Amino acid sequence: MKVIKPSITAPKGFKAAGVYAGFKKSGKKDLGVIISDVPAVAGAVFTLNKMCAAPVTVCRENLLNKTARAIIVNAGCANACTGDQGLKDAYQMAELTAKAVGCHPKEVFVSSTGVIGSYLNMEKMEAGIKKVVKDASAEGGKDAAAAIMTTDTYAKEYAVKIEIEGTPVIVAGIAKGSGMIAPNMATMLSYITTDISISRTLLQKAVKDAADRSFNLAIVDGDTSTNDSLIVLANGCAGNKMVTREQDKDYKVFYGALREVATELAKMMVKDGEGATKFIEISVQGAQTREEAKTAACSVARSPLVKTAFFGEDANWGRMVCALGYSGVNLKPERLNVWIEKVHVFKNGTGMDADEKLLKEKMKEKEIHVTIDLGRGDAQATVWTCDFSYDYVKINGSYRS
Amino acid sequence: MKVIKPSITAPKGFKAAGVYAGFKKSGKKDLGVIISDVPAVAGAVFTLNKMCAAPVTVCRENLLNKTARAIIVNAGCANACTGDQGLKDAYQMAELTAKAVGCHPKEVFVSSTGVIGSYLNMEKMEAGIKKVVKDASAEGGKDAAAAIMTTDTYAKEYAVKIEIEGTPVIVAGIAKGSGMIAPNMATMLSYITTDISISRTLLQKAVKDAADRSFNLAIVDGDTSTNDSLIVLANGCAGNKMVTREQDKDYKVFYGALREVATELAKMMVKDGEGATKFIEISVQGAQTREEAKTAACSVARSPLVKTAFFGEDANWGRMVCALGYSGVNLKPERLNVWIEKVHVFKNGTGMDADEKLLKEKMKEKEIHVTIDLGRGDAQATVWTCDFSYDYVKINGSYRS
Repeated sequence: MKVIKPSITAPKGFKAAGVYAGFKKSGKKDLGVIISDVPAVAGAVFTLNKMCAAPVTVCRENLLNKTARAIIVNAGCANACTGDQGLKDAYQMAELTAKAVGCHPKEVFVSSTGVIGSYLNMEKMEAGIKKVVKDASAEGGKDAAAAIMTTDTYAKEYAVKIEIEGTPVIVAGIAKGSGMIAPNMATMLSYITTDISISRTLLQKAVKDAADRSFNLAIVDGDTSTNDSLIVLANGCAGNKMVTREQDKDYKVFYGALREVATELAKMMVKDGEGATKFIEISVQGAQTREEAKTAACSVARSPLVKTAFFGEDANWGRMVCALGYSGVNLKPERLNVWIEKVHVFKNGTGMDADEKLLKEKMKEKEIHVTIDLGRGDAQATVWTCDFSYDYVKINGSYRS
Repeated sequence: MKVIKPSITAPKGFKAAGVYAGFKKSGKKDLGVIISDVPAVAGAVFTLNKMCAAPVTVCRENLLNKTARAIIVNAGCANACTGDQGLKDAYQMAELTAKAVGCHPKEVFVSSTGVIGSYLNMEKMEAGIKKVVKDASAEGGKDAAAAIMTTDTYAKEYAVKIEIEGTPVIVAGIAKGSGMIAPNMATMLSYITTDISISRTLLQKAVKDAADRSFNLAIVDGDTSTNDSLIVLANGCAGNKMVTREQDKDYKVFYGALREVATELAKMMVKDGEGATKFIEISVQGAQTREEAKTAACSVARSPLVKTAFFGEDANWGRMVCALGYSGVNLKPERLNVWIEKVHVFKNGTGMDADEKLLKEKMKEKEIHVTIDLGRGDAQATVWTCDFSYDYVKINGSYRS
């Protein structure tokens, strides 16, 4: 696997574009499109939020279609909590895109991100879709990545090249964060393109597994959004022999690449978490099950007290231990151990007299690794989070206005 | 029921004091005591955190004792995550207090609050306990309330007078917050004294029920602490005929007073939540069960996105609806309704075109009421929370240093 210059159009047979259609007050690009020249197969996972937005409902339906051609995404308005009108608008987004691309509406995935509760301006949408589809080209990846941003401070792109039995295959992705991020496909918007030839059912399995090991381990604030979606299109343009079996070595190579792209995008998202100044990796080992390890790690990663301590560069392991204590995991304090970087701060239920000066140095780093051993079994999980800063409050105290 | 000038020593037969013993860096009072002149009965509830602190372990044991005489509390060091040494220190706190008061160590409740993972300085503790017990008087209530504070900006006291079959009875309480506050007796430290004569088992029932309807509905940041305790002493000095039956009118009168004191203290705690600028009451109705209503309300109250929006005076109901969507309650969007103050902002799954100017005015208030109707049944619950401000980050980013 080789990391290459990232662009959602790096795999063969994909075009993209991003334009300003009039949804963002800032005047920045706010409508993006990704188009496959030929019918692709799609795999996708969506938010588990019960108040899921209209575009998610449309995407869930269209995922049942055997082929897919395009993804249309607007930023600035989430089309969530918009009832029947919102659903009508989301269907129309698909129809307008299908018409411009020259495909069936069921071959189009639609996404919206931004303020909840506002209606899409469909006049602007109609004009915007015509323009963005017309603009779409193999050079449009950067513009598409920019068009899906909301409070992100930079566009998130990643791509790798692999070989499937001698045939070069590319997997490329873009993503947007950067608040409302919590596990359970709860993450954000991310789109991944690949020119591999793979069966539809196997792609769906790969997408689900990769999401569980990447986006579903990323936490900014624990708020699970109404809109979030990971959509992957595989168009077969690489020309490899179709991958159809999970047992095949080819599948493992492809899954590894997909997971890598998803993981890198998820980490970028956390690093660019609203107001984040630090990237924190929390690894829990010694759990009875992977689920238990994840529960424990998420409890620490979600705690506002832990997150503000990281912002303050304070090695306050007591707050981490406290968050483990209320995580719901049936802990035995006398078996619990915690390390910040490699400094052992909590040993078998008791705080260690750790070198505070050394810890202070470690806490100044931009990336900090915490290791927790529950002493209950052999399972482990790692999650990624960021600190809570003044800027998180600032960004979210004034998002709508 | 009549609200009276608050002091933990307002009920007959109680003394209190607060002194500086050397635990707080600031030099402020940090050791408090509450003493009943005669053996009292006690009721108490404690944190559910698995990493509960040493003093909580000692209190749980001493709650099994039939009588109680004193409560000793230090601030500045939580004696949590301190292993065997911490437990030894907590027992010694009880022994030293018992010796000074002239009672059995099992008649003493001990609490500690402050930094997790530090050991108590037992030399300072020994000198402090001698001093504080010697100082204890009917005038010492204010000092005791001050001595238990950590990041609180003011002392929290409340008291009411009731009549039990013609006999005046007083219920008085103090509490400290103000971070690490979440439901499930998860709250903070609170001590309530009363001169009622009541059976031990009935007092325990009253305390548990009152905590569920007061402290357990208060949320600052959702972090459930290692130390938190509500301890109630009833010494019988009022001279009423002992209340022994739950069915008695007398019990209902007493329970009402206990719940009122606990509720007022819980609300004060939220209003003084770390960095709080607003008090927010979230009432959920139309739930299938009270538990479901509470789950929905807590999901909204815990959301950092909702809390920062309140700080920014932004009527961002979309974030509330989003938090309801991931609360785990099996919502039907088309039955969901939300009001901010009395402005209907979300109706049957769709955002209302509410008067933004009016909403902006409402959001400027110091106390804001949100009503949510799930449209699923008749049960309801109300929780209290506060906003997330720059100061929350500031206070918690630099607490240890």
